Amino acid sequence: MNDMKQKDADHLKALVQRRQRLMGNAYRLFYDQPVHIVSGKGVWLYDSDGRKYLDVYNNVPHVGHCHPQVTDAICKQVNTLNTHTRYLHELVLEYAERLTKKFPKTLDIAMFACTGTEANELALRLARAKTGASGMIVTENAYHGNSWAIAQITTTYETSEKRADNIVTVPTPDSFRGLYADDEQAADKYAAHVQTAIETLAKRGLKPAAFIVDTIFSNEGLPTVPEGYLAKAVAIVRKAGGLFIADEVQPGFGRLGTDFWGFASQGVKPDIATMGKPMGNGYPISAVVTSAPVIDAFREHSHYFNTFGGSPVACAAALAVLDVVEEQDLQAKALETGSYLIKALKELATDNKLIGDIRGSGLFIGIDLVRDRMSREPATIETEKIVNRLRELGVLIGSTGQYDNILKIRPPMVFSKENADLLLEKLGIVFNEVGSAD
Amino acid sequence: MNDMKQKDADHLKALVQRRQRLMGNAYRLFYDQPVHIVSGKGVWLYDSDGRKYLDVYNNVPHVGHCHPQVTDAICKQVNTLNTHTRYLHELVLEYAERLTKKFPKTLDIAMFACTGTEANELALRLARAKTGASGMIVTENAYHGNSWAIAQITTTYETSEKRADNIVTVPTPDSFRGLYADDEQAADKYAAHVQTAIETLAKRGLKPAAFIVDTIFSNEGLPTVPEGYLAKAVAIVRKAGGLFIADEVQPGFGRLGTDFWGFASQGVKPDIATMGKPMGNGYPISAVVTSAPVIDAFREHSHYFNTFGGSPVACAAALAVLDVVEEQDLQAKALETGSYLIKALKELATDNKLIGDIRGSGLFIGIDLVRDRMSREPATIETEKIVNRLRELGVLIGSTGQYDNILKIRPPMVFSKENADLLLEKLGIVFNEVGSAD
Repeated sequence: MNDMKQKDADHLKALVQRRQRLMGNAYRLFYDQPVHIVSGKGVWLYDSDGRKYLDVYNNVPHVGHCHPQVTDAICKQVNTLNTHTRYLHELVLEYAERLTKKFPKTLDIAMFACTGTEANELALRLARAKTGASGMIVTENAYHGNSWAIAQITTTYETSEKRADNIVTVPTPDSFRGLYADDEQAADKYAAHVQTAIETLAKRGLKPAAFIVDTIFSNEGLPTVPEGYLAKAVAIVRKAGGLFIADEVQPGFGRLGTDFWGFASQGVKPDIATMGKPMGNGYPISAVVTSAPVIDAFREHSHYFNTFGGSPVACAAALAVLDVVEEQDLQAKALETGSYLIKALKELATDNKLIGDIRGSGLFIGIDLVRDRMSREPATIETEKIVNRLRELGVLIGSTGQYDNILKIRPPMVFSKENADLLLEKLGIVFNEVGSAD
Repeated sequence: MNDMKQKDADHLKALVQRRQRLMGNAYRLFYDQPVHIVSGKGVWLYDSDGRKYLDVYNNVPHVGHCHPQVTDAICKQVNTLNTHTRYLHELVLEYAERLTKKFPKTLDIAMFACTGTEANELALRLARAKTGASGMIVTENAYHGNSWAIAQITTTYETSEKRADNIVTVPTPDSFRGLYADDEQAADKYAAHVQTAIETLAKRGLKPAAFIVDTIFSNEGLPTVPEGYLAKAVAIVRKAGGLFIADEVQPGFGRLGTDFWGFASQGVKPDIATMGKPMGNGYPISAVVTSAPVIDAFREHSHYFNTFGGSPVACAAALAVLDVVEEQDLQAKALETGSYLIKALKELATDNKLIGDIRGSGLFIGIDLVRDRMSREPATIETEKIVNRLRELGVLIGSTGQYDNILKIRPPMVFSKENADLLLEKLGIVFNEVGSAD
């Protein structure tokens, strides 16, 4: 290590220590050698040494880091007014109108919060009020947020206390791994677990309030879902009186290319949809979209106020995001770039046995890394190496799934074919270095 | 009503209907005739007809609506970078340092979220992890937020389901109303209820995780707290193994004039403090401040990530707020203006028998309106009339307390003596109009 590099490393180390001292040890940092990012533009992030990174991970800057149309909207509104929903304001109405138009006709009401956690909290309260029941059915290895009730249905992490009796998990509907991999009857067999979950609740004297899933099972590893699974599962839940909550925090806003929402890609319609991360391109805003009967049931005993939720600035940011998505046809572009990338990754796979499966849609792609293509043993350690090596090579990527062996490609929606080519080049280098255990 | 006014009224009515259709009926609006605010500056809000309102209510725009120092900080940062806490960034560290320096020495770690609800959620999870217990002791008529667990400890609203067994309420320590009004032993007597709450939990097989209060009991009606109450209550809770969570979402950041935090004004030190609303002058940011042992206990089983919490833009906004508070000495000014206002209100009270009690500190003042000074019967209907009449006269104020009979004066911290004079003038008019039931 030369002097310059040593100085950088020392600076990073000092920052990490200062962070530990001031923010404690409940936070994680990405990468063995954390990155100190100071600016961003489009798909690019820049560190304190002026080094450039291709951002293959961040979906929050949906239309690109610091998109001028969004930042202009924020700056204009933040200098005009930033209050709350207890005064009338046209921007929140305009956004509610634009947003609900993206949904099937009966999902015509929007309520606003700040984070995906808060949107899921509200959805949970709405579902409990509408059904009069408390049971929650969730997939294994799901992520829905960080509050008490939502951490309890976030099955990807352990909790400090036993999950409450009202929560029952079902297996992730995975065609490649899990209980019914490569099984032609997988859709029915996975859906049958939802029926079993309802029976488990019944044995505890409980009924289902809701079945909640990330509609493409992002955190579960973005599996190829057996065709028809979700429709079958939802039908079972509804028959037992429960609602279906579609968590669109990751899949939504056109990322999948084929559809604007994940539920549409699975051929189902939710009773309640929640969304967050990409809505405001980084400005905190989230929403619940549902129908009047659901809200009316909640309203009988409760009302809702969220100080910052749906503020004029949040709505200005969110409107600008929708404008850019529509004006630049980013959903179609995501499909085009994503399809190009998937095709190229499949070619890369012929020479790289580490690649066990490539799946996803549009600009949400998973590469399932395996130590052996026959056994499909997850290449967890290799994945970690690859993620860290890519960071060294100027590409920021993450991993996901139960075994943390799935490279998660989820870049800003302005990710181009040229960006894809750069990613492919670096992946090629790293796959060759790390190799396969074959 | 002339044509112009009729046109305005029709426009408002159309907006309210559109809002009902797009956002459902779980939201409330302020005032019988809601206001359609389109811009703000300092302590002033402007409606769509160019009418000017003195803002006596909003504490979120802590240093004034659209303060240029804050909006410049937001605009600069939003055009530079807005990512999350999984990369290193100096602004979040700088803010954590500045914020924790405002606390007693052992409270030296800050964690970030977006809303007061989220901060209280994290505090609740920290307290449960640290104590291994689940019991929550809360005051009657408290407000702590809108998530499932926090709505359960928000005793000011009914909930659609019975409060869980782990929640026990205690009376608000009120010197003017309630169980021990005008009682010299009030501090001991109110504190004894905390001991009873612990015994109630014990009968249910539970131990206290935390006693959580808004440290000046804002939503309970900003009572004059019997001296020494909080220290006694906290001692009882700690003896039983529970923590004390100080909810500083409303009292914090110098508003009280005498102290930067509400807990200091009550002579106690919390184990965990939560804060939100005024932190970013409207940009969503909230925080939990606590000590390493609390976080370490949580970290054994959990970690924490909040997508937008403590982002570079949120921290830029929050740093600018602290700068303005310090540079303009807004805490001292709040004390000066607040004392001036309280003195003048007391003079106003000599001729206005509707005024039963005037209390508070700095720029957080409550006027308890009564139908009879002897019986202290709450003047709820009169308060509603006054709030609505003040809106007509260009003053935006709110009401609070169990009986909604307390005028809540909680303006931006740049509220001047001149602004106070205007408020006093309008209050004088309205008190004379509405009069006393005497």
